[in-house]
Order: sequence, then C-alpha cells, then structure tokens
Amino acid sequence: MSDLLVNSHNGHLSASQRIPAMARPFVSERAAKTLDLVEKFVEEECIPADTVYLRQIGETTQERFSAHPSIIEDLKKRAKELGLWNMFLPKNHFKEGAGFSNLEYGLMAEYLGKSRTASEATNCAAPDTGNMEVLAKYGNEAQKRRWLDPLLDGKIRSAFLMTEPQVASSDATNIEMNIKRDGDSYVLNGSKWWSSGIGDPRCEIYIVLGKTDPNNSDKYKQQSVILVPHDAPGITIHRMLSVFGFDDAPHGHGHVTFTNVRVPASNMVLGEGRGFEIIQGRLGPGRIHHAMRSIGGAEKALEWFLARINDPRKKPFGEMLHKHGIMLDRVARSRIEIDAARLAVCNAAIKIDESDAKGALKEIAEVKVLVPDVLLTVIDRAIQAYGGAGVSQETPLASMYSNGRTMRIVDGPDEVHLLQLGKNENKRGPAHKKRLEAQKLKGEQLCKKYGIEPKDPLFLGRSTGEGKSKL
Amino acid sequence: MSDLLVNSHNGHLSASQRIPAMARPFVSERAAKTLDLVEKFVEEECIPADTVYLRQIGETTQERFSAHPSIIEDLKKRAKELGLWNMFLPKNHFKEGAGFSNLEYGLMAEYLGKSRTASEATNCAAPDTGNMEVLAKYGNEAQKRRWLDPLLDGKIRSAFLMTEPQVASSDATNIEMNIKRDGDSYVLNGSKWWSSGIGDPRCEIYIVLGKTDPNNSDKYKQQSVILVPHDAPGITIHRMLSVFGFDDAPHGHGHVTFTNVRVPASNMVLGEGRGFEIIQGRLGPGRIHHAMRSIGGAEKALEWFLARINDPRKKPFGEMLHKHGIMLDRVARSRIEIDAARLAVCNAAIKIDESDAKGALKEIAEVKVLVPDVLLTVIDRAIQAYGGAGVSQETPLASMYSNGRTMRIVDGPDEVHLLQLGKNENKRGPAHKKRLEAQKLKGEQLCKKYGIEPKDPLFLGRSTGEGKSKL
Amino acid sequence: MSDLLVNSHNGHLSASQRIPAMARPFVSERAAKTLDLVEKFVEEECIPADTVYLRQIGETTQERFSAHPSIIEDLKKRAKELGLWNMFLPKNHFKEGAGFSNLEYGLMAEYLGKSRTASEATNCAAPDTGNMEVLAKYGNEAQKRRWLDPLLDGKIRSAFLMTEPQVASSDATNIEMNIKRDGDSYVLNGSKWWSSGIGDPRCEIYIVLGKTDPNNSDKYKQQSVILVPHDAPGITIHRMLSVFGFDDAPHGHGHVTFTNVRVPASNMVLGEGRGFEIIQGRLGPGRIHHAMRSIGGAEKALEWFLARINDPRKKPFGEMLHKHGIMLDRVARSRIEIDAARLAVCNAAIKIDESDAKGALKEIAEVKVLVPDVLLTVIDRAIQAYGGAGVSQETPLASMYSNGRTMRIVDGPDEVHLLQLGKNENKRGPAHKKRLEAQKLKGEQLCKKYGIEPKDPLFLGRSTGEGKSKL
Amino acid sequence: MSDLLVNSHNGHLSASQRIPAMARPFVSERAAKTLDLVEKFVEEECIPADTVYLRQIGETTQERFSAHPSIIEDLKKRAKELGLWNMFLPKNHFKEGAGFSNLEYGLMAEYLGKSRTASEATNCAAPDTGNMEVLAKYGNEAQKRRWLDPLLDGKIRSAFLMTEPQVASSDATNIEMNIKRDGDSYVLNGSKWWSSGIGDPRCEIYIVLGKTDPNNSDKYKQQSVILVPHDAPGITIHRMLSVFGFDDAPHGHGHVTFTNVRVPASNMVLGEGRGFEIIQGRLGPGRIHHAMRSIGGAEKALEWFLARINDPRKKPFGEMLHKHGIMLDRVARSRIEIDAARLAVCNAAIKIDESDAKGALKEIAEVKVLVPDVLLTVIDRAIQAYGGAGVSQETPLASMYSNGRTMRIVDGPDEVHLLQLGKNENKRGPAHKKRLEAQKLKGEQLCKKYGIEPKDPLFLGRSTGEGKSKL
Repeated sequence: MSDLLVNSHNGHLSASQRIPAMARPFVSERAAKTLDLVEKFVEEECIPADTVYLRQIGETTQERFSAHPSIIEDLKKRAKELGLWNMFLPKNHFKEGAGFSNLEYGLMAEYLGKSRTASEATNCAAPDTGNMEVLAKYGNEAQKRRWLDPLLDGKIRSAFLMTEPQVASSDATNIEMNIKRDGDSYVLNGSKWWSSGIGDPRCEIYIVLGKTDPNNSDKYKQQSVILVPHDAPGITIHRMLSVFGFDDAPHGHGHVTFTNVRVPASNMVLGEGRGFEIIQGRLGPGRIHHAMRSIGGAEKALEWFLARINDPRKKPFGEMLHKHGIMLDRVARSRIEIDAARLAVCNAAIKIDESDAKGALKEIAEVKVLVPDVLLTVIDRAIQAYGGAGVSQETPLASMYSNGRTMRIVDGPDEVHLLQLGKNENKRGPAHKKRLEAQKLKGEQLCKKYGIEPKDPLFLGRSTGEGKSKL
Repeated sequence: MSDLLVNSHNGHLSASQRIPAMARPFVSERAAKTLDLVEKFVEEECIPADTVYLRQIGETTQERFSAHPSIIEDLKKRAKELGLWNMFLPKNHFKEGAGFSNLEYGLMAEYLGKSRTASEATNCAAPDTGNMEVLAKYGNEAQKRRWLDPLLDGKIRSAFLMTEPQVASSDATNIEMNIKRDGDSYVLNGSKWWSSGIGDPRCEIYIVLGKTDPNNSDKYKQQSVILVPHDAPGITIHRMLSVFGFDDAPHGHGHVTFTNVRVPASNMVLGEGRGFEIIQGRLGPGRIHHAMRSIGGAEKALEWFLARINDPRKKPFGEMLHKHGIMLDRVARSRIEIDAARLAVCNAAIKIDESDAKGALKEIAEVKVLVPDVLLTVIDRAIQAYGGAGVSQETPLASMYSNGRTMRIVDGPDEVHLLQLGKNENKRGPAHKKRLEAQKLKGEQLCKKYGIEPKDPLFLGRSTGEGKSKL
Repeated sequence: MSDLLVNSHNGHLSASQRIPAMARPFVSERAAKTLDLVEKFVEEECIPADTVYLRQIGETTQERFSAHPSIIEDLKKRAKELGLWNMFLPKNHFKEGAGFSNLEYGLMAEYLGKSRTASEATNCAAPDTGNMEVLAKYGNEAQKRRWLDPLLDGKIRSAFLMTEPQVASSDATNIEMNIKRDGDSYVLNGSKWWSSGIGDPRCEIYIVLGKTDPNNSDKYKQQSVILVPHDAPGITIHRMLSVFGFDDAPHGHGHVTFTNVRVPASNMVLGEGRGFEIIQGRLGPGRIHHAMRSIGGAEKALEWFLARINDPRKKPFGEMLHKHGIMLDRVARSRIEIDAARLAVCNAAIKIDESDAKGALKEIAEVKVLVPDVLLTVIDRAIQAYGGAGVSQETPLASMYSNGRTMRIVDGPDEVHLLQLGKNENKRGPAHKKRLEAQKLKGEQLCKKYGIEPKDPLFLGRSTGEGKSKL
Repeated sequence: MSDLLVNSHNGHLSASQRIPAMARPFVSERAAKTLDLVEKFVEEECIPADTVYLRQIGETTQERFSAHPSIIEDLKKRAKELGLWNMFLPKNHFKEGAGFSNLEYGLMAEYLGKSRTASEATNCAAPDTGNMEVLAKYGNEAQKRRWLDPLLDGKIRSAFLMTEPQVASSDATNIEMNIKRDGDSYVLNGSKWWSSGIGDPRCEIYIVLGKTDPNNSDKYKQQSVILVPHDAPGITIHRMLSVFGFDDAPHGHGHVTFTNVRVPASNMVLGEGRGFEIIQGRLGPGRIHHAMRSIGGAEKALEWFLARINDPRKKPFGEMLHKHGIMLDRVARSRIEIDAARLAVCNAAIKIDESDAKGALKEIAEVKVLVPDVLLTVIDRAIQAYGGAGVSQETPLASMYSNGRTMRIVDGPDEVHLLQLGKNENKRGPAHKKRLEAQKLKGEQLCKKYGIEPKDPLFLGRSTGEGKSKL
C-alpha cells in the first residue's frame, strides 16, 4: 500500500526540493528533513486517516460533539515517535517548541493543511497553537503548569473566546463580555460565539476576552484576558454554529453564555487592562499558520483538479477534460496564483522571524487578504471540473471551500485589513505628491536649460485676441 | 531643488532597505549600494529629464523618427560617471557586464522602469540588452568587435526582427522570412513588423530571424539568425506601428520589407539552423527585465494614485479622495498585488541565477503572465482616480498603460504561456490521480481495521428488495 | 403581525409595479394581480413558514429523509385557496396549468425563489415541474392519469434520473443505464446519482433516462425515457449527496442503483429511442425557472445585505456599515447586475413564449451562465457583510450559496453552454471576416477617388535603395 | 463592391430582425425600417469612409485641428437624402427631430457607434446632440434662431464647456468659472478643459457653465449656463488633450482659458442660477446615446474578434484560433455580456420615454456603469486575439478602447454613479431590516403554534449548572 503511495511520487520532487529558491537560505538542514517527514506522514498516514476520522464521529448533534475519534490518538502517538510535535512554537520566542522558525514551520504547515487530522495529530492545531503561545508568553508559572503543560502534551484542548454575537467584534473595542472583580474572584457575564473548539469533549480551558474597565477613557485599556475552566458553573453552550452546512464536529464553533461565572482572581493573564495587548500578540503568527495551511489546501485542490481532468471515464464530447484548453488555462492560472501567494506567506514569516509580528504587520495583512482569495478561487475551479462530485461529500472540495470562506472573516474580515493597509500606504501620499511636483518643476527648469518651449506635443495656442476687461 | 527631491523622501526607506526580506541573502553589499544609486539617479535626474526628452522629439512623423534628444547623451555621460552602465549582463554568464546577478539587476530594473529615459541612459534598454546577450553568447569574435563593442559602449543601437505580419509568429515555426545562401552571401526576402527600435536613427544593426531551410523535417532546425546592417540595400521601412495612439518615437515599432537584401555569409550567427536555439536563449532574462520594469511601473502608478487622493484641490462631495473608502481599498489591493508579484519576479531571477533560463522556465512563464496583469490593474485604478487627467498627457498613466498592454502580447501572448504552463502542470495529473486513489483505498482499509462500516454520514441504505432478473 | 409585515412595505412598490418597463407589455392584468398575490403569500406566509419547515425535519439521516413537515400541506391548502397553483405550466403549450405565459410565471418564480417552501406550496417545485411537463407533453393517456394527475394535484412527488456517477453525463450520449426489453417488460440496470427529490417519502415516480439501443450508429437515438414506480423491486438508494454540508432533506439528492428493475413495457414514454428528444424539450423552461428563482435569491441576499448595513448594533470603527463606501459600492454593483440579469431572463422567457425552447436556445444558454454568476456574487457580498453570521445557520445565506453553486453545474455545466454559445456565434465569423475585408477594400477605393495616398499617419517610407537580386 | 458587402450578410438577420424580443413592442414600423437603413448606411458607406476620414486629417497639430475632411459633407448629403437626420431628438419632447423615441433612436445609435463618421454624418454626434437639446428645451426664440437652426441643419458645430482642470468638477458645485454681470454684458473668467469638439474649425458656439452667484447659500443656485460665440475676444485654446495617444482631431478636447470674455446679457440661458437645472436635464439622454453607441462598439469588437479567429493565416500550434477553446469561451462570454447590457440600455431608454430622464435616474446610472465595463472587456479580448495588430493602427480596436475608457469618466466617473445608486438603494435598508425581523418573529410564533421547540438543528444545550452570582 505504502508502496503505491510512494510510487505515485516517482518523478516528483520531495517537499524540501520544492521549497521556493528564494526561501532556501532560511531553511536549516534539520528543518528540510523534518519537512520531508511531515509530507510523508501527511500523505501516507493522515490523509487516509481522514476517512476514518470523519466516520468515527457520530450522527446526532449530541453524539458528534461528544466524539473523540480514536484514530486521532493513534496518529498523535505516531507523530510523537516521528518527532513531529509542537513544531509551531517558533524557536526565537519559545523554548518549549520543536525549535523551528516561523518560516520553517510555515512550510510544514502547508502540508498539514492538506489533511483534516494532521494538525491535531502533530499538536499544531488551532486554536490550541495560539492559546499555547499566549500561555507561554504571558502566563505566570502557575498558569503554565496548570494549562500549558497538558496542552503542550496534547492531553487537553482549549478555546479562545473573543467574538460576540451582538456587536462588530472584529473591532475589539466593541467587546461587551463583562469581567468584574469580586473579592478573590472575577465574575463573568456575557455572550460569545464562534468559540471554536469548544465542542470537543477534551476542551478544558477557555481563554476569554472581556472588559474589566469598560469606562476607561483609553479604549485599549478596557480589555482583559482571563482563564476560565470549562466546568466553571454558569456556562451554557446553546448551540453549535454551522459553516455552510458543516458542523465541524467534534471541534465545533459554539454559541455560549456566561452567567455569573466565577473564577479565581489568579486566573487573570498578565493583569487587568492588558487584554488588547495579548490578542494583538496572539493573532500575527496564527494568521501565517492559517495562510500556509491554506496554501496547502490550494495545492490539494489543484491536485484533485488535475486528477479529474486525467480521469479517462470523464470525457465530455469525446475528450478527456485536460484536452479542453479552458481547463489547462485554469490549471495554469492556479499554479501562478498559488506560487505567488506562497512566496508572500514565506516572506511574511521571515519578517516575523526577523523581528516579531508587530514588525511584520504589513506583510501579515497582505497574506491575510491575498491567500484566502487564491484558495477559494482554486477550489472553486476544482469544484467546477468535478461537477456534482465537487459540491458533495464525494470530494473534500466543498468542505475545504466552506472552511476557506471563513478565512476571509476570522481574525478580522478582509475589509478591516484592507482599510488598515490602505491607511498605512496612504501615509506616503503627501510625500509622493511633493516629490512628483518637485520632479515636474525640475523638468520645467531643465526644459529652459535645454532651450525648449514649455509646451507639449498637442500645443495649439489658438487665441481670439484680448478680451475686454470690465474697466 | 535636489533638496526638495530628497526631503520628500524623509521617513522613507531607501531602495536597498526596501528589498523584500526573503531576497536579501541574494544581494551583495555592492549591489545594494548600486541599487540606492540607481534609485537616486532615476528619481532625481531621469524622471525630470523625461519631460525634456518628450519635448525634444519633433512633431511630424519624419522629424520624430529622425530625432535623437540630446538629453539622452547627457544622461548617459552622467550614468557612466556614476558607474551605472550595462548592469543587465549577469555576472555568471557574461564577463562584459557590471558584475551583477539577474536578481540584483532585476531589483535595479524596477527603478529604471519608472522613467522613460533611465534604461537607455544606463545602456540597459531593450532590445539592445537582449541583442547584446545574443552577440556576447553566440557571436564570433569578428561579429563581437563589429557590433557588440559599440553596443556595449552605447554608440549605436539595434533591433531584433522576429515578428511577421502574415503569420502567427508567436509560434516561431511559422516564420516566413526567407534567407537563401548565394555564394559568399545570404539573400533575405520577406516582411517583419513590430521591429522595435528600428526607428531610432542610431539603430545600425538588425538581428534577423528567418528560415534557411524551410523544408527541414525537424521544424526547429529550419530557422537561422543573421546580422543585417541597417543600410544594406533592399530594406524598406514602410511605416511605424502605433501602440494605442502612441508612436514611441524615435524608438518606434517598424513594419519592414526585405527585398533581395544581401549580406556577407559571415554574418550568420552560430550557423544555419541554429535560430530556434538562439531565440530561446534570448527570451528568458528579457522577460524578467520586462517584468521587473513593470513592477517599477506599477509602483509609479501607485505613487501617482496616492498623490492624487491627497490633492486638496480634488474634493468630490467635500472630502479628499483618500477619505473615500473605495480609494483606500484599491490602494491596499494594489499594494498586495505588487508585493506578491515582485516576490515572484525575484524568485524567477534567482532560479535563473542558480541555473539558467531553461531551468527557470516555469518561474519565467509565471511572471510573464502575472506581472502585466498586476501592472495594468494598478495603472487602471490610478487612471480612474485622475479622471480626465488620467487618460491624457497630463499624467504618464495612459502612456504607461499602452506600453503595459503590449506586455501581455510581446514575447508570446498570455495564452501561449498559460497553455505551456498548463500542459507541464498536467503532467503531474496521472500521478496525482493514482495517489488519490491509493489514499482512498488505504482509507477504506483503515476503516475496516477500525471496525467502521464503509458508509458516509448520509448513508441511507433504503432498498425496495431484490429486482427480478431476466432469467 | 401581518401589519408589521405590510407596514414595512410602506413606500415600496408592489411586485407588479416593479416589473421592468420593457417587460410590461407582455404581462396581462390577471398575471399582474397574481404576481402581487404571490409576493404577499411568499413574504407573509411562506418565509415565516420556512423556519417551521426546517425545524420539522428530524435529526438523523433516517428521520430527515422520512420527514414530511406538516406545514407544507397547510401552505398548499392556503395556496390553492388563493388560486396560486401550477402557475408554471405555460398557457400556449399546456391546458392543465393556470394559464400564464413563461414570462408571467417567470416573474412569479422570482418571488417563489425567496422562500424554501413557496415553490412546493404552489406546486411549482423542481423537479416536479419539469416532470409534469414531460408527462403532459409526451405521456400517453394512461401514463397521464396514473402519474400526471396526482402530480398536478400535489398528492405525490417525482424524480428525474439522468445523471450518472461514472461518466461525464452532462453529455447525454455517455449515459450507461441499461434498459432492456424482455417480453412485456423492460429491465433496468445501472447507477444514477443527483436523483433530486428521491429522498422525499412522497416521491412515487421516477422518470429514468437510459439506453435501449446503446449500439445505434445515431448516438442520439440510443436513449429512451421510461417511468419507474418508486417501489419497483431492485432499487437501492445508497446514500444522499450533500451540497456543501447541506443534505437538502427531505428532498435530497440520491445515489441509486437499479438491479434488474422490471417495469411494464407500457411505461416507455413516447417510444424507444426518443429519450434525447424528451430531455432536450424538458430542459429549456426549467432553466428559465431556475434562473428566475435565482434572481429572487439574489434580491433576497441583497435585502439581507441592506438589513445588515443598517443594523445599529454593528458599528466597526464607530460607523454603521452603510457609512463605509465600500459597502454602498457593493450594493450598487449588485443592483446593476441583478437588474441586467433579470432583463436577460425575461427576454429569454419571451422568446420561449414566442416560439418554444428550441427557438430560444441562445437566450436560454445566456441566462444559464449569467444568472448563477450574479447570484453567487451577490450572496457572497452579503455573507461578507455578515461575517460569521453569514456563513452559519444564523442567516439563510450560506444555504442559498450552496444551492446557487449547483446552478453552475446542473442542467449542464457553464463550460458546455459557453462552448455551444461560442460555436454558434463563431458561425458568423467567416462572414464577418469577408465583410471587414470588403469594407477595407472599399475604403481603399474611396481613398483613390478622393485622391488620397494609401498611407496611414505613421507612414515612414524610408528605403535603403534597391536590393541586389540573385541574378 | 456593395454586392460583396451585402453578400457577406447572407444568412444574417437585419438590424430590425435582431431587435431583442422584449423591445419589439416599443418599436414602430417606421423606426424598424429606418433602423435597417441606418445599418446599411453605416456598414456600406460610413465604415469604408472612416478610412478616408482618418487620412484626410493632416499631420501636424495645427493642420489636424484646422481640418474638415470633405468626405463628411458628402456623407451628410447622402444621409439627408436617405432621411437619416437628427434622429436623436425624441419625439415626445421635441418637434424638431425625426420623430423617434429614445428607444428607437437608441437602437439606431448602436449602429452609428460602429463607425467614426456615422454619427456626424447623420447630425447625431455628441456634443451637438446634447447642445441642441439644451437650446431646444431651454433657449429663447432668438437663441434658437441664431444657434439651434444652423446646428439642426449641420452647418455649424458646438461645444459644452463644463469640466475644469483645477477642481473635482464631476461635482458641479465645485465649478469656478466666473460669470459676472456688467451692464448689458456678462464677463467670463476662468479655465475649462475636456472641452470636446472645440478643435473643429466649424465649432462656432460654446455653451458654458459657470457661476454667477458663487456665494449663494443654496449651492445649486450658484450656476448659470451662457452662450459664448467662438470668436469672442479673450479665449485661448492652449492645447488639445490626448486620450491615450489619440488627439481625436479635428474634434479634439481643448484646454481653454477665458480672460474677460464679454458676451451680451441676452446670451444667458433660462436665467441666472438655472445652470444646475440645465445640466441635469442635459445629461440623461446623452448617457443613453453613449451607452447604445458603446453597445455598437462592443458588437464591432466582437465582429473583429470573430474575423480574427477565423483567419486561416493565423494558426498558432497548427490550429486556427477558433479551435482553441479559450477563444470560444471568450466569444461566448462577450455575447452574454453584450446582450444583457443592450437590454439594460433599452429598458432605460423606455423609462425615459415613459417619463423623462429624472424618472429614469436609476436605470440611466446602471447603464452608465455597466456598459463601459462590458465594452472595454470585449475590446480587450479582441485586442488579445489580434496581438500586435490589436494595439496598433492596423485595427480600430486600440482607438475604440481609448474612447471606451473615457466612458468610465465622462458625465461623472463610475464611483459617483455607484455611490448615488448605493445610497438610493440603501434607503430601502431600514424597511428590509424591519421586515426580516417581523418575518423572524412570525416564524417563531408559528413554531409555537406547531408545537416546535425554538431550537435549530445544531442545538446543544450543554450547561455547567448555575453560576454563583455576586450576592
């Protein structure tokens, strides 16, 4: 079996051989080897396991959100054996990880993005990744021992509760969840939704963004981040949100209410009023992970596309689909768009590696907008080549599209990033205006120096004579 | 004056500081310094000189194609003083150049692409660049001394005559120009058009592609490349072709007929039947140069765009244009698209540097298609922000658009590159198909191993009982 | 309650008042009144009922495909009372319907397309509509009494089994379902999928396309259409196909196998070898119905979009979304695209009314491609405005998108229609070429007559003198 | 010759036979006949004459803007003989015209739009058409006799001076041209550009928009329209503006300064402060004319496209272009887009016919945005099929593109129309929001009535128990 999987690669380059030329100097030998191992693990073990995973989840909503497909634990064991564990924690910021840079992990994440199970199998699944980063970076020792250690070990899972149903929470200053100090405790009241991962029965810790000081005149000091155990009394998970028709069980996206949920004051992360700072730090690398997994998704869609147009059973008008020029045109455009997008993600990852997420704001925002657009375009082309099979469970394409579509929304919709990018870029505007004017002026002066009349080729200079002034 | 030009840069990064993070390891210190010098030369001297240049060309067609704007020679002198000369010849293939890699020159070409005069001023203008490469790579010593030396020195100019009006010459096997051996001579008969640069009075040498053996059964052995002096009897330049309304004088794009044009047999390059090989070698790096100049064009268009939306005199509905969100959205998208395209060009240049144009076929084809699309999109947005000024001589935008539009056509139209890319990509199709099937099969086997019935979540299994067979 | 629903219409035009100016002469007074009634019924009764409908379907797959939400029967009763029944059967071809033209029904279908329940409530739901047309047009009296009458009365439902999983069945000549004569019976063997509606427990009749004469040299004579009762032994419905994540229960899209399914020979429709003719006739009006419902879907998405950008709780960066120019830009583009698409559908419907589906092939193909593109674009914009709510069950948008996406596939994928349109249009090519040449020639003759030299403005006429011929 | 032109039509439908089905009831028999005559005149006489026209214009700027190609007068004579004269003046608003509706003329304008000379030949050329409408509608008797009569007779030409170089004049409240009363005169001072038609030596009258009362608190009462004879002292035409590289001579687009230009007070149109009202009235029908000519342009581009892909000399990779599926795909999309756009223009024309331009604001704005986009897309596809010939003078495509590009700018850029459309559409927003909420509420009530729990399919209802309140 594995032979077949390997044989099919004949003539193909391995993952490390396919690293873009420009990115190679940034990849260590160890990372290159690990990358090839990731590819092998994903293609040979995780993707086949996806089928089992999807079938091990039950049928009713209650069942599906109590499920823990046993194959996941088998894959985790296997990944640990292979040394593929916690690769996401970048070496220059965290000692707890596998010692790779953001770029190196990014290249691996591309392959993880091709399978439903691979990210979780290697303990590199969102939202745990971002949550572990938060705990490692901002948590105190007690918090780390209590929550970070089991997360790093893949024993429990976590959720990040930020988005709220009632407000435009992509602008975090609008958050309404209330966190009130009461003696040695904090008491939380409010609603959250898109609490991703909350459906998993192993999800034991919620990292919650709320407001401890909603009236603070500095609107970036109102927010705090606090740790809430999943079994604290007062929490109701009303329903799971679907993405297109998918429930993403057992992970899920919860709609949750907190009513007088009380946690020890020591669960506050970093201190009251530090919430905005924490979520800012959290989002950067996560966006790169999403982006790189999305590149993998796009590659996967293209592979499915190619497989279809080479299917000898599918011959509309007597010719296999790859004989129809429009199909090759779409294949080629997909290749161009994916390759350019990958370079953009790699470059952003390198920028983060060279400084941090703050120093790579522009690059991160760029890929945040660019990559989902490429992903959706490529998947949509593949769907169209498959026809009915493309929109159904017969291929992973529709599910991938649904997930990809959320990428234009999560961590801030396109519009927010475009506006921010546009505003930053616009800061250069007045200087450009000044320079263009100076260049024009210098051009006119040069014309004089060269004895040229200041007129352009379509100078007409027709005049009816002098007009009569009013006096 | 220069103060103003410099002051306007305040707070801005220099060209070398703006090299994409991922490209930096590939750029030497010397190249970085030269890059900054190129930027300064272009912004402070060439762009102002563009105004003079455009006005030094005359009015009638005859005048315009006899013109040699004197400012060009002044700029060339200046560029030589600055050491900015022949940067295009890549160090690992040619000893005659300035010693830069394709990537390094590519980064410089971006700035050259912002000015009408800068490429010629630094002796880096097409088609001379490609022609010098041909002579340096394939010419014999006599040919080099006679033609390459004055070209390298900027004393003469050259044209490359390949495209023909009567056939689909993007497919070089269709070429019809006849080259016939006659004693010690070759005699040429046929028509060419889009003979760019032929209008310049200093254009002294034509490199001509024709067929010496039109009936050779190997259709890639029929073609030869031969050198034709501009004053060989029998050449008629009928007319110049316009690009949109522009004549691109004095450079121009000629429609030419050869009637019994006789040249010495020693003018043959490399030997009869080697023409296809020569043009293949010629096109690769040139496409990267075009692409990188196009990136510069796109940046220039974006700068003009930004200048406009910060013009306090232009306030539709009481607000400067940058207060209108749709404008910032377009600025942001332009920034994203340009940055991704630049990375693609850099990566292709690096691939050429690492092997040669042949080894970078895919990467070159990708940028050949991607970059003009980005360029035209960004210019079009800028035009729209300027309204009437955008389509007229008041801004360089319409001229840039016209030139940019040809980039989707010259050196092979988009469709040819997409088809080639698509076909190459499609070669992976059968292997992908096989792998997907193997993964599916392994998935089914795993299901059995895990004791799962082979059914998906929407299994219905409704049956009306057994049908009656025919027997 | 109804007051609120009505009040909200204040200042709005009724459906009949919104008929495009150009379509009005084609709409009778009776149709205009019925149209307003349809709007009222849909907005006030059907859309609120959609909520009930969705909740009356059960949870497990078995439950969901046994469900018959009782509210549907209540709505049907109500629709009959209002006289809103079988409007889809065009008056000039069928006596059984409500007496409207395709255009008139098309305008009504737009409103039906805004609700999940409205089409079924008025007995205008696919695939019953097309199936009733087939029976009315091609069925014999016995077939009509047995199947058409209960269908017209809304007592049973039906499915059309054409698409097959193993072949490119958008090209009907590829169909493999075997129909073999055996005495007084036909015996069917083969697989079908995308058998839409087959999940409904009330679906009693399948209209099946297969091949009775697979070796006939005329490949359009191989096919036949035959009627198969749902309970004929030998039918297995393996599973239901999902559309994105939706199962579309209880309707559903079945994957079915026929094993020795035996039906009386009298169930053959029209005769052996007439299958191609029947499906050709079936598809035309159905495509218009789909298209017009899609226009309604696009209008609904735009209404949801508008509602969102006027939601005072959603204020990213302190301003309601409609204050963000990019949102109004998208609203405006949606309005433009929907209005143009509606006119195209109306025009196609009128063409069918004036002759028949054959006479409107071009117009039908045009809307088949155009309308889903508009629909998906508008829905996608609305989804983006809603963010997380847009992709989830919180709005109908994701479900609408999923359904809309299939519109680019069902009844032939875009590519088939574009190819056909392109080929037909291309037939005019040689004549255009001839005319352009004749016009050019006449232009040259006119030039002579006017004493103008035959040269264009960029004539250069430079020559090096006469070349030396070979002799 | 004419035979050939006619023969090439064999098998083609005449213009009147191609009227969209939906538009036919609005076209009189007389108009249908005239339409066929227009087609014949354009195809057989005007298009061949275009070649002569372009060559009869001189070479230098001075020559080109003094030229009056004699063939124009010959065509005008011929058009008058055929009764093709002043068709643009709609019958229900003007008695001076040929008695057609806006729709009927619109259909004719499509054909006029295929030729450079046809509009002027039939006295239906902008800006004279709009100017004649202004004079006929708002001029007094003396003004009509002095200027309208010779315009209607084709003896003189006219210009409309509105756009100004220094301000965002698409918003007319920004206009700065000063018109000051001085005794029996008005004195004008200020600059205008894009004064189209001012280059023509026969242009004798300028209709000028300026401000007589720049401080009026009602900013729509500040403007006035006044008539200025071309030879009034104080007028300087500095230069002509190019459109891409085209000068559009002799018509041209002037950049003009008025210095103390004095005209009799009786030249005021309608009275001081009525300027805004006049320009509002002027723009509506003109936009439809532009739009319909643009449809003709798009059809012409498609014809050239089709001619190219059927050119047996152009066989890249051994096959004529129409054998390449990508080309047919583009042909088909062009057909779809043109046909939908034409319907939109027809519908807008009918709306104007039924009331007036004010009653058709939405429809006019829609086509103002939609049509140029279609036009440019189709031309660009044709250009690409032609390669080098497409961008040069070898085809009319580049010139058509340049002109088409201005259509997104003149009479208000896209953005202004989209914003206005978006704002109008958004007025329906609050009502839609209210209705959706009412429908939701009614849905919930119905659920109760049907005994359904108010939960959706993904209801989870997991709770950790009651939280501890603060008391």
